[in-house]
Amino acid sequence: MRLTQLYAPTLRETPAEAEIISHQLMLRAGLIRKAAGGIYSYLPLAWRVLRKIEAIIREEMDKKGGQELLMPIMQPAELWLETGRWSVYGDEMFRLKDRHNRDFCLGPTHEEMITTLVKADVRSYRQLPLRLYQIQNKYRDEIRPRFGLMRGREFIMKDLYSFDRDEDGLEISYQQMYDAYTKIFTRCGLKFRAVEADAGAIGGSGTHEFMVVAESGEAAIVYCHSCEYAANVEKAELNAITAQEEQLLPLTIEDTPAVKRIRAVAEFLGVSPDRTIKALAYQTDKGPVLALVRGDHEVNEIKLQNQAGCLTLALADEKAIGEAFASLPGFIGPIGLAEDITVIADLTVMQMVNAVCGANQPDRHWVNVNPGRDFGAAVTAADIRLIQEDDPCPRCGAALRVTRGIEVGQVFKLYNKYSTVLKATYLDENGKDKPMQMGCYGIGVSRTMAAAIEQNHDEQGIIWPVAIAPYAAVVVPISSKDQEQMALAEKIYTELNLQNIETVLDDRNERPGVKFKDADLIGYPLKITVGPKTIADRLVEVKVRRTGQVHHYPLDGYLNNIAALLSNL
Amino acid sequence: MRLTQLYAPTLRETPAEAEIISHQLMLRAGLIRKAAGGIYSYLPLAWRVLRKIEAIIREEMDKKGGQELLMPIMQPAELWLETGRWSVYGDEMFRLKDRHNRDFCLGPTHEEMITTLVKADVRSYRQLPLRLYQIQNKYRDEIRPRFGLMRGREFIMKDLYSFDRDEDGLEISYQQMYDAYTKIFTRCGLKFRAVEADAGAIGGSGTHEFMVVAESGEAAIVYCHSCEYAANVEKAELNAITAQEEQLLPLTIEDTPAVKRIRAVAEFLGVSPDRTIKALAYQTDKGPVLALVRGDHEVNEIKLQNQAGCLTLALADEKAIGEAFASLPGFIGPIGLAEDITVIADLTVMQMVNAVCGANQPDRHWVNVNPGRDFGAAVTAADIRLIQEDDPCPRCGAALRVTRGIEVGQVFKLYNKYSTVLKATYLDENGKDKPMQMGCYGIGVSRTMAAAIEQNHDEQGIIWPVAIAPYAAVVVPISSKDQEQMALAEKIYTELNLQNIETVLDDRNERPGVKFKDADLIGYPLKITVGPKTIADRLVEVKVRRTGQVHHYPLDGYLNNIAALLSNL
Repeated sequence: MRLTQLYAPTLRETPAEAEIISHQLMLRAGLIRKAAGGIYSYLPLAWRVLRKIEAIIREEMDKKGGQELLMPIMQPAELWLETGRWSVYGDEMFRLKDRHNRDFCLGPTHEEMITTLVKADVRSYRQLPLRLYQIQNKYRDEIRPRFGLMRGREFIMKDLYSFDRDEDGLEISYQQMYDAYTKIFTRCGLKFRAVEADAGAIGGSGTHEFMVVAESGEAAIVYCHSCEYAANVEKAELNAITAQEEQLLPLTIEDTPAVKRIRAVAEFLGVSPDRTIKALAYQTDKGPVLALVRGDHEVNEIKLQNQAGCLTLALADEKAIGEAFASLPGFIGPIGLAEDITVIADLTVMQMVNAVCGANQPDRHWVNVNPGRDFGAAVTAADIRLIQEDDPCPRCGAALRVTRGIEVGQVFKLYNKYSTVLKATYLDENGKDKPMQMGCYGIGVSRTMAAAIEQNHDEQGIIWPVAIAPYAAVVVPISSKDQEQMALAEKIYTELNLQNIETVLDDRNERPGVKFKDADLIGYPLKITVGPKTIADRLVEVKVRRTGQVHHYPLDGYLNNIAALLSNL
Repeated sequence: MRLTQLYAPTLRETPAEAEIISHQLMLRAGLIRKAAGGIYSYLPLAWRVLRKIEAIIREEMDKKGGQELLMPIMQPAELWLETGRWSVYGDEMFRLKDRHNRDFCLGPTHEEMITTLVKADVRSYRQLPLRLYQIQNKYRDEIRPRFGLMRGREFIMKDLYSFDRDEDGLEISYQQMYDAYTKIFTRCGLKFRAVEADAGAIGGSGTHEFMVVAESGEAAIVYCHSCEYAANVEKAELNAITAQEEQLLPLTIEDTPAVKRIRAVAEFLGVSPDRTIKALAYQTDKGPVLALVRGDHEVNEIKLQNQAGCLTLALADEKAIGEAFASLPGFIGPIGLAEDITVIADLTVMQMVNAVCGANQPDRHWVNVNPGRDFGAAVTAADIRLIQEDDPCPRCGAALRVTRGIEVGQVFKLYNKYSTVLKATYLDENGKDKPMQMGCYGIGVSRTMAAAIEQNHDEQGIIWPVAIAPYAAVVVPISSKDQEQMALAEKIYTELNLQNIETVLDDRNERPGVKFKDADLIGYPLKITVGPKTIADRLVEVKVRRTGQVHHYPLDGYLNNIAALLSNL
């Protein structure tokens, strides 16, 4: 492709609408254009990247027995009413009516659709396992679509659904998909981590997220540098930290006038924050919940929610603390609370000795609180705290690292959640009706493209990993008006393409600076410059976008050099 | 792929919902399943066919300088309000609101979107021409979705849009797309005709439809067997048929009591129907219109509508004929009508001599009507009749043939229709602002698959053209329990796939009859049977699905035979 013809309109200015780097660079490099909030057109360069990611996904899915199909985007409401998700999805689901006033939605996911499809045609254990997938647009009406392709309302997903005879089969499907995902993101040239994630209501050890490591990631993840453990902080398990042995002192109450925040209380009483108990009051659909963590720790609300078994959870405001908890903000604590309040204490809190906590009275705190002794009879002890940098790894005890990641894939064991509700059963060897065991496995295809840019860029622009670059190389004649340069540039351009090294030729009548800027912005892995010097020396000058390294190869035989260079990038 | 694993659930019974053969066979062969009226899931076999059609389309589009991109399905209403098509589309457009109550539609087409996209980034003549295309779902809320994929509400389209500097450029783009379409449908192995079609309000010689010839086609097409002329009957031009020379007789009026229909009038008055004038009363948004054709001819309402310049057109009912035309059904005619009634006479009518027509009086007809003499002063003479079998070709005069076709593609010159309204202009060499000249070019991808089946099937099932067959061959061991047969079948299956001849192995534990029936139903071009006899003779038995011919090739070297056989199918 010649750049005089390629539809890749680059922009000099960074559009104001773009907050994060991938969004800015995709607009500037002529990859995407906005059609509406969270809805984008993918221009030819982006489309090439997406098709490469898709091709890698297809190969790896097929290797694991995946069969591609395509289900509708428009889905009848009946399917969703059957599982109850028509109402669960709320405003996040795009809904519409047809001319006969029948309700439809634009599929945010396809569990209902595929389960209904499979149950109609699969009757015998002989037809299982089955792994079906598709790649297509998904729809979610986000409250605040933003960050370009990172949080869109219309986005491209690969979703595979596995149907197995039993949980052992599901384990195999799950592991195969896990392995395939590892292959896919590796082949895409991305640094990523598969982390344990929260399985929500389904529970169990049933889900991993695949996170592309990037500072701009919306998710915090922890990983152990000495063993394989990695997890979303939402999920990361924590054991109790045991305090040093110490004599239990008698409980006393202290005046702490207008001293409310943990740090202030600790300072006022002359103790370190890890000797205080932080109490947080929540209102939930299951009633008021008081959560206790050590003063220097944070509550993990996902863990708390799972522990409390509630669907909604929000910090109580001042009024609610007064009414539901009969206490005061800043002075709330577990001692002497009404009995109908659920108290959940972090495992570490239960190990504390001679601690400080709020007294449920104005301007007062208890001192020398010892959980087992002074409260705790009606308290649930559970892992509810948020993991932090340097917390011990739950597997090997080494200090954990925290980083940020962009979730690009998730594998999930659904077990019989949908097959039971939708009656997707099969007859086993003994003629007995059994629900299929399901799994679902998603990859955000358009988000993977954005994540690749978040991870691979510099101030000049994108730095594509070779496997997903729209083109591997650009040939830039210093002057398009110079016939000798153009002739050599054309020759190199043609020869590289004949070697299946996808190359563009910058034949535009532009200043060299403009061409170089665009090349760096778009981020071709290699830039081949043709100028008077290289012509005189019969050399081909190749600059590696990622390292900035410049190579000079003899014009005779440069093709092998470039092929070798690319295969090592 | 082994059939024990392939997700292609075949059905023994023809589902009652399916009226036409492609729909029946796609359901029975496990290609599609219905999700809602006009909305289908494409199962793995269908998806393979679609991907092959798409691959052919992509190659031919790219050869003609097409660049692939992907625009959103969800389109903001503003785009459509600008061109006025938000209201024009009426109930056929699926509409929805997002959570902020903003209006969107599901794209039935993308002229608005692409024009808006291109105008933002294209400023100079140097950036033109531009040919951009995509392949994706389109949406039309048909009143009566039916015929499976033939008239769906969610369907797959390829749409390319061309942007040129001027009409000469548009001509080139148009011709290139015409040529590409010819290549595409040829490569798909389909019998088709490119026919002149009606360009509606835009007019000009600006559109061709690509019709797959099939009896079940919704469109009637005419073609000349002695020259290249072919057209949709809606569009097919007709010259006037001149009557034999004859002396003009004086106009007289005759009683024709209760004789209303053309054939009855002709019989009653002892003339042949081609001596009568058929008058049809229409109500339109531009007022009442009387259309005249020869008694043995039919009105072409598309031509009439274009001629009358109206948007709506419907036959007037009895009451309207009485009121708007001040006449009576069965006795209406052009003589003595109110002056505000538009009368459009077919060219042939104007050549008639001593004809019969209604007298606008009860039970009476005029006889010896001579258009030039007796009416015609205020009459528009135009080609408004429907072409018929044996009508003379407008190019060469030979008798035309009528056949039926399924529209699978259309190329269309839009000129500056959208670029003017949406202000998509560019600066020409002289710095002058000019509207881009546009064309649009569509292929119904999913419909092409259905049309291929309508054209290629027999009582046993589908007969895929090789180029778009889901697999080229199936290997069927007579008995899957016979180890020797299975071993040979596996060997052939493996060797064919290694030769890139996509082959499935029917390893199911089924009776041979069931396997053969499924093979014919799914319609693999070749069926390779492995049984005791072929093993003993060291032969490979290959049956060609289309011809029923059976070939026996020596086990040593059969691969070349099969490759040669396939390349000649």
